[in-house]
Amino acid sequence: MPPIEFQRYAVIGSGAVGGLYGGLLAQAGAEVHFLLRSDYEHVAANGLQIETPTGNFHLDNVHAHGSVDSLPACDVTMVALKSTSNDRLHELLAPTTRDGGIALVLQNGLDVELDTANVVGLDRVLGGCCFLCSNKLGPGHIKHLDYGRIVFGEYVQNHTDVTERVQKIADEMNAAGIDAHGTADLAAARWRKLMWNIPFNGLSVALNASTKVLVEDPDSLHIVESIIEEVYEAATAAEVVIDPSMKEVTVEMTRKMVPYDSSMRLDYINGRPMEIESIIGNPLRAARKLGVDMPFTEMLYHQLKFIEQTRA
Amino acid sequence: MPPIEFQRYAVIGSGAVGGLYGGLLAQAGAEVHFLLRSDYEHVAANGLQIETPTGNFHLDNVHAHGSVDSLPACDVTMVALKSTSNDRLHELLAPTTRDGGIALVLQNGLDVELDTANVVGLDRVLGGCCFLCSNKLGPGHIKHLDYGRIVFGEYVQNHTDVTERVQKIADEMNAAGIDAHGTADLAAARWRKLMWNIPFNGLSVALNASTKVLVEDPDSLHIVESIIEEVYEAATAAEVVIDPSMKEVTVEMTRKMVPYDSSMRLDYINGRPMEIESIIGNPLRAARKLGVDMPFTEMLYHQLKFIEQTRA
Repeated sequence: MPPIEFQRYAVIGSGAVGGLYGGLLAQAGAEVHFLLRSDYEHVAANGLQIETPTGNFHLDNVHAHGSVDSLPACDVTMVALKSTSNDRLHELLAPTTRDGGIALVLQNGLDVELDTANVVGLDRVLGGCCFLCSNKLGPGHIKHLDYGRIVFGEYVQNHTDVTERVQKIADEMNAAGIDAHGTADLAAARWRKLMWNIPFNGLSVALNASTKVLVEDPDSLHIVESIIEEVYEAATAAEVVIDPSMKEVTVEMTRKMVPYDSSMRLDYINGRPMEIESIIGNPLRAARKLGVDMPFTEMLYHQLKFIEQTRA
Repeated sequence: MPPIEFQRYAVIGSGAVGGLYGGLLAQAGAEVHFLLRSDYEHVAANGLQIETPTGNFHLDNVHAHGSVDSLPACDVTMVALKSTSNDRLHELLAPTTRDGGIALVLQNGLDVELDTANVVGLDRVLGGCCFLCSNKLGPGHIKHLDYGRIVFGEYVQNHTDVTERVQKIADEMNAAGIDAHGTADLAAARWRKLMWNIPFNGLSVALNASTKVLVEDPDSLHIVESIIEEVYEAATAAEVVIDPSMKEVTVEMTRKMVPYDSSMRLDYINGRPMEIESIIGNPLRAARKLGVDMPFTEMLYHQLKFIEQTRA
């Protein structure tokens, strides 16, 4: 197999997800440009430190950018900032996508690609779901704890197979040791991930508990399972096919997971905005349009909005 | 009108409710025996201090009892301890009801009369709902903040009118300045009160907020109103007639209420068991038997059980 010729990548939002995947691509030899904010000075001076379950490495020379002005046009721009900052996407995405490059949206939730599509157009947007436990421990310091799969595909699903440009990125990611899979059914991946994200992100804040506690206590488990059922029913109404065994698998996977604070709980604990709308509000509204009630999810949504409002 | 000849009363559980109503009856001239636990020494030595919106008074000579052994047989025993202590009812009720006296259950929730009926028999049980804001500020010190109505009647509803014994107690309470009303439809009063108790007791703990905050924030208000609707639907299924305007009245009343910590929130804050089963679990199970889903109420129930379990 000839040595792979990587495309040029940009990472907008170089946190636990963007920093990890971008770091792995750079370690494999790709040219990866990282847009940083508070970590810029540190990473420009010291590089990136990445810990993974299979080994740690340090990237000495990182293409670190403290502002969008120095970013080059790239083939692939990974959108990995929190969706609560999406009002800044026009400013952040314009430079790297100016020559027709595509955007790969790695944000949590449903229809989070729309904000990116408003900048680059629907035909240049891919979306991806990351099934991983990863935290940023400090400036330029990422710790990947468990799992790691990324499933991504075209946001506009008018292809029956994985498209060429999706497969090309998947191949490059695989070459970098990332468990990446192209899909022709992004919606299924999105809803599949919501089965975890809605109950475990939401309840970890509403009940102030780790994922481990949530699956071990019978009362919180009842709520978790009820929400998973609601998400499954909404996905079915959206004509997304998910194997029903996934409901139980989602709980079992969490039972075996390294004890973990969800991204929403970390946001809550650290006083950052929570991704309530993208993770819970958007699926709730999509289900309502399809005539599906999600009462547990709806109550959780309003509890989280209440918590966000009253903590201020 | 001839001077009233009061029956002999006992108060089992001399807290914010039992202490207030028993104190008002005693102040009016009734012989009222108070069973006390931690407050016994203080009340035996210093009497009861009662503050009300219309004036304060002090009862110097109180029939205070530190154990059931000294309690006489009484005509009416008010059961005003928390329902979480109902496993002690056999021991606590036997002395005062030994000569055929009746029990008036002033506990929160639905079907809380059954534990008392197990001791004295169904035909000797009355139940009552107290619509009041009252707190115990310290040993023998009750502060009645707002409202004060008590609506009570036969637990076994095979009478079309208010029974003689219910009216007799109502007359005595009225003579003592208590806003007491006999009813032939205790179930309606119970469900009517649950429309307040379930959302405001439950959410004040689950969302850690006062009643004032719960009605002012639009997201918590949405949950409050959804739960009120569920309780109304369950009551309707139970063939209880409640005027639909009561749904809005319940919220409006709370909006105008003196800012208030619900009894469940005070229990939570002070590390005491919460009345989750009587206030929320029993109505939920009653509704389920009638084929009515109460999803918001169900989620709240499991959240509270989780909170009670994990705080330990």
